[in-house]
Amino acid sequence: MDFIQRSKRAREKLASEKLDAILLTNLTNITWLSGFSGSAGRLVLTEDKMLLVTDGRYDGQAQEQIENSQSGAEVVIENAKQKEKLLNALSNAKRIGLEADDISWQMQRTLDAEWFQDKSAELVPTEGFIVELRRKKDEGEVARIKAAANIADQALEAVLPLFTKEPTEKQVARELESAMFEFGAAGISFETIVAAGKNSARPHARPQNTSHLKKDELILIDMGALVEGYHSDMTRTFTIGDPGKIQTAMYELVSKAQAAGVSTVKAGVSCDEVDAACRDIIAEAGYGEAFSHSTGHGVGLDIHEMPRVSQGSKDILQEGEIITVEPGVYLGDYGGVRIEDTCLVTKNGCEVLTHSEKKFNIS
Amino acid sequence: MDFIQRSKRAREKLASEKLDAILLTNLTNITWLSGFSGSAGRLVLTEDKMLLVTDGRYDGQAQEQIENSQSGAEVVIENAKQKEKLLNALSNAKRIGLEADDISWQMQRTLDAEWFQDKSAELVPTEGFIVELRRKKDEGEVARIKAAANIADQALEAVLPLFTKEPTEKQVARELESAMFEFGAAGISFETIVAAGKNSARPHARPQNTSHLKKDELILIDMGALVEGYHSDMTRTFTIGDPGKIQTAMYELVSKAQAAGVSTVKAGVSCDEVDAACRDIIAEAGYGEAFSHSTGHGVGLDIHEMPRVSQGSKDILQEGEIITVEPGVYLGDYGGVRIEDTCLVTKNGCEVLTHSEKKFNIS
Repeated sequence: MDFIQRSKRAREKLASEKLDAILLTNLTNITWLSGFSGSAGRLVLTEDKMLLVTDGRYDGQAQEQIENSQSGAEVVIENAKQKEKLLNALSNAKRIGLEADDISWQMQRTLDAEWFQDKSAELVPTEGFIVELRRKKDEGEVARIKAAANIADQALEAVLPLFTKEPTEKQVARELESAMFEFGAAGISFETIVAAGKNSARPHARPQNTSHLKKDELILIDMGALVEGYHSDMTRTFTIGDPGKIQTAMYELVSKAQAAGVSTVKAGVSCDEVDAACRDIIAEAGYGEAFSHSTGHGVGLDIHEMPRVSQGSKDILQEGEIITVEPGVYLGDYGGVRIEDTCLVTKNGCEVLTHSEKKFNIS
Repeated sequence: MDFIQRSKRAREKLASEKLDAILLTNLTNITWLSGFSGSAGRLVLTEDKMLLVTDGRYDGQAQEQIENSQSGAEVVIENAKQKEKLLNALSNAKRIGLEADDISWQMQRTLDAEWFQDKSAELVPTEGFIVELRRKKDEGEVARIKAAANIADQALEAVLPLFTKEPTEKQVARELESAMFEFGAAGISFETIVAAGKNSARPHARPQNTSHLKKDELILIDMGALVEGYHSDMTRTFTIGDPGKIQTAMYELVSKAQAAGVSTVKAGVSCDEVDAACRDIIAEAGYGEAFSHSTGHGVGLDIHEMPRVSQGSKDILQEGEIITVEPGVYLGDYGGVRIEDTCLVTKNGCEVLTHSEKKFNIS
């Protein structure tokens, strides 16, 4: 985890956008830049200073995390003197960026009225300032996302034998989550999706206590683990017995589309090309309308982050980005099929980080 | 769950604040008012309309939840026509409230520039508009919080025998969380705190894989369950063997302070009186500085919500509010003690909803 490089890149961006400072309010962006992961904080970055402001609960944790990250942030615990310290650090700043897509209107109004009214500084709205920088992962980040993906792989393998015993969706979700903890996850990446039969037709189905995994039906699993704040994301669709012709055709189609998408991923390729590689195959087979979401998204400290792998996305893939490729087809009572891998973009292609076998029939 | 009453109260407040409409962006407030619990949405409430705007992923779920809640909201799925529908519903509105403490500066700027520039409507910042209304719980809400508290009680009882076997903090946390799921929780209220020995001196300690529950030390457990979106919150401190004189004195002091706090809770009492009932006892014993947080908080759809039970809080308790009373004393290497109950405010006192036995020594 190279925090010095991160602040260097952020400062270069400040200069290129003619900003003297930026005030970060988004906690994930603060974690990325400083290493601090508490639930309350703001961070000011100037050309030569980084100030992390947090409250008394994080006295101790903040110093420890900043020391570990070597990000060079100075920790300011909220008290009567914090305003003075912050204004001091910003004394020469004429243009101060705010994270307009994160900071509340209320906080912007307060800063404007109470902090900067007698100062000739301008509060400038920025969008995606840090989020764009977070796209390219450093070695430490890649290692953590790989570890998270491995944990999910191991957990799925461990729990797979349960699938044939007609468990409920909720039981399977719980077992998968317990197994991820057993294999070393610090948490789950998102609420695990276990969707059986027609429930699999809802892309964001929530596991139910009343719905059982049954023979001759589809079983969709979407899961990920969390390692030191970093996420993984993987979907597999299974069946036991004979799911029927339509479902089998859906699986083969999505499988083909997903492989085509993954084979398109490469530094320099635009995200809409990856989306089109999946979408065209599904559309040509006449299922275009049944693929109702985008093909993928970046993965990192957030489960959904930049870039957008969707129709019309102009984002160009760079070496070191980590994205998902996850086409799906959803057909009401027939159920749904989705297959998803998390992929590290390389110079000549990509490295797939999710290794669970793509075996449809597990009878 | 009386959604009709909720929108009635919200409309009365609109009238009293001379607002023609309010645009809600806070998802918890949207859930409270409409019954919709998806992860994306906005809601417009006017004198005679309630419009819920969400995206295609929630087509189906939104209609179902609105039907169940009978909140009367009209579901608008995001598409080319949503702007027209919204502007239509707001066509007579002169003053439109925004949730200034929630809406991003970016969204406020966009609304101002793109939506309302050719309309003579004023965008008015509001703070805590819905949050204040959420303080008083209806019968359905009380029932859910009671159910959540009962689940946590059962889970703690089930896992308590493990405490004497020198497990790690993390093992205990996992077992408590699994047990809550077993007893019917939909989720956990917050990351369960299991803090052994000197770790208990950190009010927000995170359970560690490397720290074991040991004889002659303090063990602090802070846990809660989630039932249909509603939280519970309870802390107990235990020991096994002989923790030492100072720790025993800390426990007795916090126990006395907590009981004093609970006995003060009653409709009409101000929150700073409840805080003072705890704080004065701890301060008189010379541990004032070691009680480093406020006495409590409201509990509901959020784990921390209004009112604030803290020094100087002017919030007056009302019948039907649910708050925690949770004084603590934290002394570095000696560890920390906190005892917490969730309490329903009644006309003549309160009903304690968390029933786990307050037994210090469990050897």
